[in-house]
Amino acid sequence: LDEILRTGKLSAAFEKELFTLASEAKNRSYAPYSKFRVGAAVIATSGNIYLGGNVESASYGATRCAEQTAFQKAVSEGDRRFLAVGVATDTDAFISPCGICRQFMVEFGKGVIVYNFKPDGTFKRYLLSELLPDSFGPEDLDRPRGQ
Amino acid sequence: LDEILRTGKLSAAFEKELFTLASEAKNRSYAPYSKFRVGAAVIATSGNIYLGGNVESASYGATRCAEQTAFQKAVSEGDRRFLAVGVATDTDAFISPCGICRQFMVEFGKGVIVYNFKPDGTFKRYLLSELLPDSFGPEDLDRPRGQ
Amino acid sequence: LDEILRTGKLSAAFEKELFTLASEAKNRSYAPYSKFRVGAAVIATSGNIYLGGNVESASYGATRCAEQTAFQKAVSEGDRRFLAVGVATDTDAFISPCGICRQFMVEFGKGVIVYNFKPDGTFKRYLLSELLPDSFGPEDLDRPRGQ
Amino acid sequence: LDEILRTGKLSAAFEKELFTLASEAKNRSYAPYSKFRVGAAVIATSGNIYLGGNVESASYGATRCAEQTAFQKAVSEGDRRFLAVGVATDTDAFISPCGICRQFMVEFGKGVIVYNFKPDGTFKRYLLSELLPDSFGPEDLDRPRGQ
Ligand SMILES: [Zn+2]
Ligand SMILES: [Zn+2]
Ligand SMILES: [Zn+2]
Ligand SMILES: [Zn+2]
Repeated sequence: LDEILRTGKLSAAFEKELFTLASEAKNRSYAPYSKFRVGAAVIATSGNIYLGGNVESASYGATRCAEQTAFQKAVSEGDRRFLAVGVATDTDAFISPCGICRQFMVEFGKGVIVYNFKPDGTFKRYLLSELLPDSFGPEDLDRPRGQ
Repeated sequence: LDEILRTGKLSAAFEKELFTLASEAKNRSYAPYSKFRVGAAVIATSGNIYLGGNVESASYGATRCAEQTAFQKAVSEGDRRFLAVGVATDTDAFISPCGICRQFMVEFGKGVIVYNFKPDGTFKRYLLSELLPDSFGPEDLDRPRGQ
Repeated sequence: LDEILRTGKLSAAFEKELFTLASEAKNRSYAPYSKFRVGAAVIATSGNIYLGGNVESASYGATRCAEQTAFQKAVSEGDRRFLAVGVATDTDAFISPCGICRQFMVEFGKGVIVYNFKPDGTFKRYLLSELLPDSFGPEDLDRPRGQ
Repeated sequence: LDEILRTGKLSAAFEKELFTLASEAKNRSYAPYSKFRVGAAVIATSGNIYLGGNVESASYGATRCAEQTAFQKAVSEGDRRFLAVGVATDTDAFISPCGICRQFMVEFGKGVIVYNFKPDGTFKRYLLSELLPDSFGPEDLDRPRGQ
């Protein structure tokens, strides 16, 4: 962890661990409607790691993504700053977090590293700020209004 | 737990415990916009207990309630059936889960007992089916369509 | 309209009209994932009527129900108080608004009459307060907090 | 409109019109909690234009942004393809659509031009694909799964 905090990068061993954890989280997702299982694992700056799966709802609008589950857990355990989040699915493609998740995560900082893992463990890596450029965030709500 | 499963009711001691846990969850909520802190504790039929706080977002629509956090945790750990959920806030009133949470929870059964706790530990108690009568749920998505 | 405002009830002719409008709204819904088409028609106290269909999203959590579409239209045209809303689907059952919609609508008053129409025009009728008892609403956010 | 479709660009006159419409939509927003009023105007390829304001909810998670209102209207009137959307607020800054809205809009195409208007009518302009790079969308739900 110290090394991550110092270098701002995850070691190859840690990336592999993140893949393993996100894949494990995927196994407990509840996705009866889309059949699209997703798992997420997030590492807080505290060193704590949280896992989450997607949880769907018959009223689709109440569906919650895996990234949200992991972050909600983390935040409600007291963590507020995060280093990296890994996302795993069953499809042979690099699946990115949806816009809702990008918005949900950016609340806690733009510098989080996002890993999109294929089932074989290969990945694409981004900064959250690259996935949600010119984001809307807490700073905007504080701006003075003309009216 | 066996007693709860047998009687369908929580003992007074367990209700007190549920209040303590929901209150504890409240302490780690993230509610910078509404300043309305909420904590939730849910008991699964497995005996596992999960805590969650509300997590707000500058884009209000991405705000997630405490009940959702607790249930998302629970479901993504593998639990699918629940006995009771307790909700605690800082206001001297019996605050009920919002409609989004009622919908989110009903996915996993209508018989969950919902406790709304005041800060002094007194409560109102409902079945989820009383809070969301004639609910829309998984069974509706399977109905045959005329078209 | 005057009669509705005076009696708090819709005439049979108006109920039939509401069914026709909700059914029409259903025809333009966008529901490629659930194939569950829903239409809604809402009557404001101004006499204005607004139609809406459900609009789904590949990220299920961004799915918006028909009732939301109709109410969002209405509110963003300046209406704030409503008499009745009719909901139509393709299934031979009385399909109720989901909890998200009940919450969304209760923001603008608990006394709205909700009609769940079958494709043959028969209906079940509720007050919104019956569908979301002991609701959470604007009045709760204003309560004093212990902390 | 023909010129827009041919050139893929809005004329300066049309951009001014879009600003006027988005600002008008803002006047009917319902934002009692954030006091952050937003208006949106969207132009469909059919030439139809739809306005929408943000509609907030005491349960913050049920809050719907202005862009969603305008797009939900449009889709539920039968439009499915869009040229441009303009967003207006009261703050002296270029406020971008949140991630939820980016996700909601990308369902209907990545090539929509997004205008963020300041109250003085100056703007920043993006393609939606620039605001939500490597987006998650309908094409992803169709991918074959390993499981
Ligand atoms: Zn997501
Ligand atoms: Zn809630
Ligand atoms: Zn609904
Ligand atoms: Zn938005």
